[in-house]
Amino acid sequence: MKRTKQMRQSELKSTIEATPFITDETLANQFGVSIQTIRLDRMELSIPELRERIKSVATQEWNETVKALPIEEVIGEVVDLELDQRAISILDIKAEHVFSRNHIARGHHLFAQANSLAVAVIDEELALTAESRIRFMRQVKQGERVIAKAFVRGDDDKGRTLVDVHSFVENEEVFAGTFEMFRQQESKE
Amino acid sequence: MKRTKQMRQSELKSTIEATPFITDETLANQFGVSIQTIRLDRMELSIPELRERIKSVATQEWNETVKALPIEEVIGEVVDLELDQRAISILDIKAEHVFSRNHIARGHHLFAQANSLAVAVIDEELALTAESRIRFMRQVKQGERVIAKAFVRGDDDKGRTLVDVHSFVENEEVFAGTFEMFRQQESKE
Repeated sequence: MKRTKQMRQSELKSTIEATPFITDETLANQFGVSIQTIRLDRMELSIPELRERIKSVATQEWNETVKALPIEEVIGEVVDLELDQRAISILDIKAEHVFSRNHIARGHHLFAQANSLAVAVIDEELALTAESRIRFMRQVKQGERVIAKAFVRGDDDKGRTLVDVHSFVENEEVFAGTFEMFRQQESKE
Repeated sequence: MKRTKQMRQSELKSTIEATPFITDETLANQFGVSIQTIRLDRMELSIPELRERIKSVATQEWNETVKALPIEEVIGEVVDLELDQRAISILDIKAEHVFSRNHIARGHHLFAQANSLAVAVIDEELALTAESRIRFMRQVKQGERVIAKAFVRGDDDKGRTLVDVHSFVENEEVFAGTFEMFRQQESKE
């Protein structure tokens, strides 16, 4: 049964509201229409493209600044940040991030995105990684966009801050890491 | 008590034999002489400088080639390699590897050196990191030289190859990691 344009646009709107990080490609597949149709629908509905959507959703509440390092030293683009709570960054996988032979993203770039986000989320002038446990769930290819989400779990008994980072391509998890962060407490001596 | 030059040179020789990765700076401190004196001693004794020493020690038995990636994609300089056994690489920490604020090496560069060495040591066309557990033991500063040593422990019950990597500045361990490597078995179908 063919949906009317109105029905499709209504569903499209609610789909994007529910999963704001969904791409036009995925939407096109899901609705059985061309990417061009999705783009036209978005324009008519005044829904911005994914990148703008991520930024605008994220920055609504983002009025904090990275403390532990200059923002330009974060690998990837920080689009959301609440110090000692959570942070989100985007990394587009380009030629310089992949193995030349098979165009699979090299592990240390996914690690760098996640690790620098774990540093950035810490509300302290000095934050260093002490330990980490990471998993690469599936290969990431050149051209894909990785969205890393950091979540601060709290402090352990050694006073280290535990940060969980999960990285996604569209809605599929590609990387997960736990980072034990050492932080320099501001001394009041 | 001041040592004679002959005594010092004899001790210097045996010290370098015992700890070939020791720097001129450390030797100078240890022997209470200037770095220049150590250099002159080395020249008289025909002991090459550290970098050459590491290479010559290592490459004596090195007649294998990296298979899993082009050698220029390894982070750091590979100076020793025995496929599926062990490998050594050197990474000099420069301005591009450190936080601008405190000149401490960023974790992902130490990780990249270790991880790419863990890939390089695998005797297979395709090797990818599945999981990793890492520890940063002490801060590494700009100007320091990191020597990473990979050792292949064997395969686990999922058929993944376990590689241990320990990285040192002089004789002090600065980083340790265990990498579970997925390898594509050459299929004979």
